[in-house]
Amino acid sequence: MDVIDLLMRHRSIRKFTDEPIDDATIDRIIGAGFAAATSSNLQGATVIRVRDAETRAAIAELAGGQTYVETAAAFFVWCADLYRSAMACDMAGGTFEPGVTEHFLIATVDCALAAQNAVVAAESLGLGICYIGGIRNDPATMTELLDLPEQVVPLFGLCIGHPDQDPALKPRLPLSVTLKDETYDDSSDREGIAEYDEQMRGYYLERTGGKLDRVWSADMSALLGKESRPHMRSYLDGQGFSFR
Amino acid sequence: MDVIDLLMRHRSIRKFTDEPIDDATIDRIIGAGFAAATSSNLQGATVIRVRDAETRAAIAELAGGQTYVETAAAFFVWCADLYRSAMACDMAGGTFEPGVTEHFLIATVDCALAAQNAVVAAESLGLGICYIGGIRNDPATMTELLDLPEQVVPLFGLCIGHPDQDPALKPRLPLSVTLKDETYDDSSDREGIAEYDEQMRGYYLERTGGKLDRVWSADMSALLGKESRPHMRSYLDGQGFSFR
Repeated sequence: MDVIDLLMRHRSIRKFTDEPIDDATIDRIIGAGFAAATSSNLQGATVIRVRDAETRAAIAELAGGQTYVETAAAFFVWCADLYRSAMACDMAGGTFEPGVTEHFLIATVDCALAAQNAVVAAESLGLGICYIGGIRNDPATMTELLDLPEQVVPLFGLCIGHPDQDPALKPRLPLSVTLKDETYDDSSDREGIAEYDEQMRGYYLERTGGKLDRVWSADMSALLGKESRPHMRSYLDGQGFSFR
Repeated sequence: MDVIDLLMRHRSIRKFTDEPIDDATIDRIIGAGFAAATSSNLQGATVIRVRDAETRAAIAELAGGQTYVETAAAFFVWCADLYRSAMACDMAGGTFEPGVTEHFLIATVDCALAAQNAVVAAESLGLGICYIGGIRNDPATMTELLDLPEQVVPLFGLCIGHPDQDPALKPRLPLSVTLKDETYDDSSDREGIAEYDEQMRGYYLERTGGKLDRVWSADMSALLGKESRPHMRSYLDGQGFSFR
């Protein structure tokens, strides 16, 4: 299998068969996840596998009715985690400095790198995945459901299972916009975005049988024109991430 | 090639041959990066390829004397980017809400997912990589060097090149610590960390011919017992990320 072809074929899968995934395979997938690079060897990520049907149903609902959280063979919550490193500081006779912006950043990046490696591992086995950002709709309830200590933040969920659908690839912005040479030169970005808007219009029209006539820039305006998940800052404060 | 084996074989490469990488290959690698999942299709990442020798030398120095930033066949700076989406809002006749914590989070995660996909793509071609978190030693100078607008944050650098070394794999924390079942149960974490400490002691001793007798928990205490990169918060404020 050509790995780059595999990466290029990624689509989110939101419908799964009921075929299970054995625990050894889960361990291989998650083990491959944690083989990703980690800043200063912090390993600032923890993943929690949720099997309990009631907990899954509660998460599916708070994530906005994403029922595949319940039906995927496996469901995980990926957390940025400084709690464990604080424990290690204590074991080494040191003291952990909470609330440092840089520490939050490295744990968040560590977590995303590990999750993406796990995703690639899963997809290489023919499995399908879907990230669930919707868990951040209600991080306080997530924290309660998963009994998360301070210094642990549930960043996103991840469904993994055997695909029961074959959705089209979603086009991406052209590299002329996202890959820049030497400096951040945005002089042709509006042109690139306008091209992409038309491509996305075609994608939406085809996917909805002509019903949805929409472009990417309108999606962005809807997404970023409001204070989305306004509870995040105070939630993070409460978990000990005060961005000082 | 077994993809999971490839992922498990990752080590950072810090010594490269002078063999170049052609532009078509770079485009394949970065294109595979941006094929990763993205929250709400935000595509909140931009990657800047730096070729100029003087700029590379300046970055190598500010990153703490990491000379491989200069010698790798290709060097990139991965940025969390809401500037482009703000441009898209404007094109759609909307207004962008700056400073929202959630928006910063999704752009940061998007950027890390894309970078890790690019890393896997590069490694699948036999190339070696090294992330450079050290660019955050001086994000203000990075911003000047790369002419970054507000709403763009340089998260990390990435060296890609042909390996000229074959370092040992660095052990990771055991899954008994990093993969949890149902809830965040830390009751056996100290035990798992103590085991890993001994494993890391062996790794350091072997790598330094017996000179470095050190454990992971001591690394964490050194890393997290101080306010690392204390400029990050005010830098991010200045770029328009106020975490409200």
